[in-house]
Amino acid sequence: MEEQKHKLALRSVRLEALGDGIFAVAMTILTVELKWPELKDTSWQGFVNAFHQLLPGLLCYIISFIVLGIMWFGHRMIFEYIGKTNRHFIYLGILFYMMVCLVPLSTRFLAENALQWGTIFVYGLNLSLCNLSLYMQWTYGIKHAGLLERELPPEVKKEARFLFLISPVVYTIAIIISLWFPIASIFIFVATPLLYLIPNKLDKYLP
Amino acid sequence: MEEQKHKLALRSVRLEALGDGIFAVAMTILTVELKWPELKDTSWQGFVNAFHQLLPGLLCYIISFIVLGIMWFGHRMIFEYIGKTNRHFIYLGILFYMMVCLVPLSTRFLAENALQWGTIFVYGLNLSLCNLSLYMQWTYGIKHAGLLERELPPEVKKEARFLFLISPVVYTIAIIISLWFPIASIFIFVATPLLYLIPNKLDKYLP
Amino acid sequence: MEEQKHKLALRSVRLEALGDGIFAVAMTILTVELKWPELKDTSWQGFVNAFHQLLPGLLCYIISFIVLGIMWFGHRMIFEYIGKTNRHFIYLGILFYMMVCLVPLSTRFLAENALQWGTIFVYGLNLSLCNLSLYMQWTYGIKHAGLLERELPPEVKKEARFLFLISPVVYTIAIIISLWFPIASIFIFVATPLLYLIPNKLDKYLP
Amino acid sequence: MEEQKHKLALRSVRLEALGDGIFAVAMTILTVELKWPELKDTSWQGFVNAFHQLLPGLLCYIISFIVLGIMWFGHRMIFEYIGKTNRHFIYLGILFYMMVCLVPLSTRFLAENALQWGTIFVYGLNLSLCNLSLYMQWTYGIKHAGLLERELPPEVKKEARFLFLISPVVYTIAIIISLWFPIASIFIFVATPLLYLIPNKLDKYLP
Repeated sequence: MEEQKHKLALRSVRLEALGDGIFAVAMTILTVELKWPELKDTSWQGFVNAFHQLLPGLLCYIISFIVLGIMWFGHRMIFEYIGKTNRHFIYLGILFYMMVCLVPLSTRFLAENALQWGTIFVYGLNLSLCNLSLYMQWTYGIKHAGLLERELPPEVKKEARFLFLISPVVYTIAIIISLWFPIASIFIFVATPLLYLIPNKLDKYLP
Repeated sequence: MEEQKHKLALRSVRLEALGDGIFAVAMTILTVELKWPELKDTSWQGFVNAFHQLLPGLLCYIISFIVLGIMWFGHRMIFEYIGKTNRHFIYLGILFYMMVCLVPLSTRFLAENALQWGTIFVYGLNLSLCNLSLYMQWTYGIKHAGLLERELPPEVKKEARFLFLISPVVYTIAIIISLWFPIASIFIFVATPLLYLIPNKLDKYLP
Repeated sequence: MEEQKHKLALRSVRLEALGDGIFAVAMTILTVELKWPELKDTSWQGFVNAFHQLLPGLLCYIISFIVLGIMWFGHRMIFEYIGKTNRHFIYLGILFYMMVCLVPLSTRFLAENALQWGTIFVYGLNLSLCNLSLYMQWTYGIKHAGLLERELPPEVKKEARFLFLISPVVYTIAIIISLWFPIASIFIFVATPLLYLIPNKLDKYLP
Repeated sequence: MEEQKHKLALRSVRLEALGDGIFAVAMTILTVELKWPELKDTSWQGFVNAFHQLLPGLLCYIISFIVLGIMWFGHRMIFEYIGKTNRHFIYLGILFYMMVCLVPLSTRFLAENALQWGTIFVYGLNLSLCNLSLYMQWTYGIKHAGLLERELPPEVKKEARFLFLISPVVYTIAIIISLWFPIASIFIFVATPLLYLIPNKLDKYLP
């Protein structure tokens, strides 16, 4: 009785604001880390050379930016269904944000040593842990009726699980392949975001 | 039927919050990159010399800050009309944010090599891509009635297109001119923001 | 009379937004400071060596991230009860944010000199000052009825005091112990967050 | 008529959010710039020496943090009265944010050359420009009835002007004094924030 009267709503809006801030900083810092090579001569050739040196780094940062954008979208979507929080849900959110904050670090590592097994392993592991921790948060949230904002159609639940878990599977394959063909792994990292850009079963629930 | 019942509103407020965060970080980081030259002697002359060395960089950062401020304003305005989002609209937003996050990088490049064709090309291209991707997002948004929050007067539509597209045109001219007179291009970069500060046809719709 | 009519609500929402931003930047910057050691050889052994060198730093950053996450949660909780602000309350908030912004600095200091009394003292002192300043803000807020949003059950008041003050006590013990066994202090820093992860008396008021 | 129908509210909430983000980043980056001197020996004396070297920088950062906190409070207060925006008001806001973003730069300059006329001039000028541009924004806002959210009591208007303009006056004095006694200027920078911490005539309008 007493507890019921003093029960807090603990709406999710602050946790979302923290997340938006963390994604904003992580995404901006990604590209800030890029350094232009020094222009040794001012000819057209010198400029092309400098750009050529920047290119692998630039590509890594573009991949990471798009991947973070897609994760942000997933993170944004779960709060369409989950509107309240409790202590465990918030700590699962902090765990997800911790993984997100490590992405600039593993991106830099990849950009500096692009075609080595070790860096591909670290990068793939980092991105997989992002997805897995977000999936844990989502699973915890939808299991606790008190946190749900609206009814969750079974189709959404199934499709969301697919979208959360397909990336870690693909990244695991990329890590294994990198033992023999590191360049192929990079192609997989480039191609994976496309999975989230093509139409999917959730689109019909969106405006 | 079933889909209708479970339809989500997917309001634009989170995408706007992410954007505000990204602009805030990008704008702050611009000036943070600036380094004071070491003060070799503590005389008045030494201080003037140090300031003189800082000046070209400071000017580049001021231009970029104002340009980002104007873009933020454009970005803020489109959400007066567009109140809901879908997957494609959000991904177009992420694309725009990616271009914005590259501005500190191209500003640094310009500040370090101010009067060269290559850097002016990169800087002008970056700013143009910001405007073009924002224009794509806007065009997509106003074409989908489900995303619109309020009626869009034809005059606003026309003037908005002008304001989005005039910059890329001017920047292209600046890039071409820089082949012969790089200093003139810098003047164009300084003057372009003024186009957005003088009164325009949209002002009568504002408070 | 006149004052009553012009009285401002000064809701706490902006102070919370500033805090969310500060926590987001501080948490992201923590991991950004980490640098990968250069990979000298590309063998499996070389990668293991590099990771080994990164490990102590990584551990410090993980501890700080979790501690900041817990502090954010505490900070988020006090605004469930306090919904308005005044000048003194806001300045106490700024004091708390100042302590939070120093955490990346003291974390870096710990990461670079992990097992020394001085760094453990600075780190423990910084974390304690965070908790103590947040506790000051909380105490001030709940004493001023005009700031309160909802009734504060005595049990919450008591448990909150315990949760705010237990950390500074534990950190003081860690600092003293570090004079003889610095490694034991590190273990205490790792273990303290667990105090906030186990169930507590406030959980029954949450969803 | 037509314009009336399509008139936009252009509420100030997004501009406030951008400002909160910019203040959050600027405040966090202030302390992040601080570097611990290398610990040459691990004795108590070595630690005291390192701390001693850090102290002047730490003091500069604390001053700037408190000054930014007070400015944030002023910035937060003007939006209690001003609830809508237009193009010019927003551009004045961008100008204020530009001055705020330069504070980490001038703080670093002061921290590295604390007792020189040039750095004190730059620092005092930067802080003064922050206050003056915020005052311009405020003056513009309260002159346009369409932007006002609530009635502005004459006493508030007068006291606000005093609080906005007292700092630039004091800082100008500090700059002049620094020609002869730079150490006295630093004391003035330390003491000025106290003006905003003592009770003032606006407190009776707050909760």
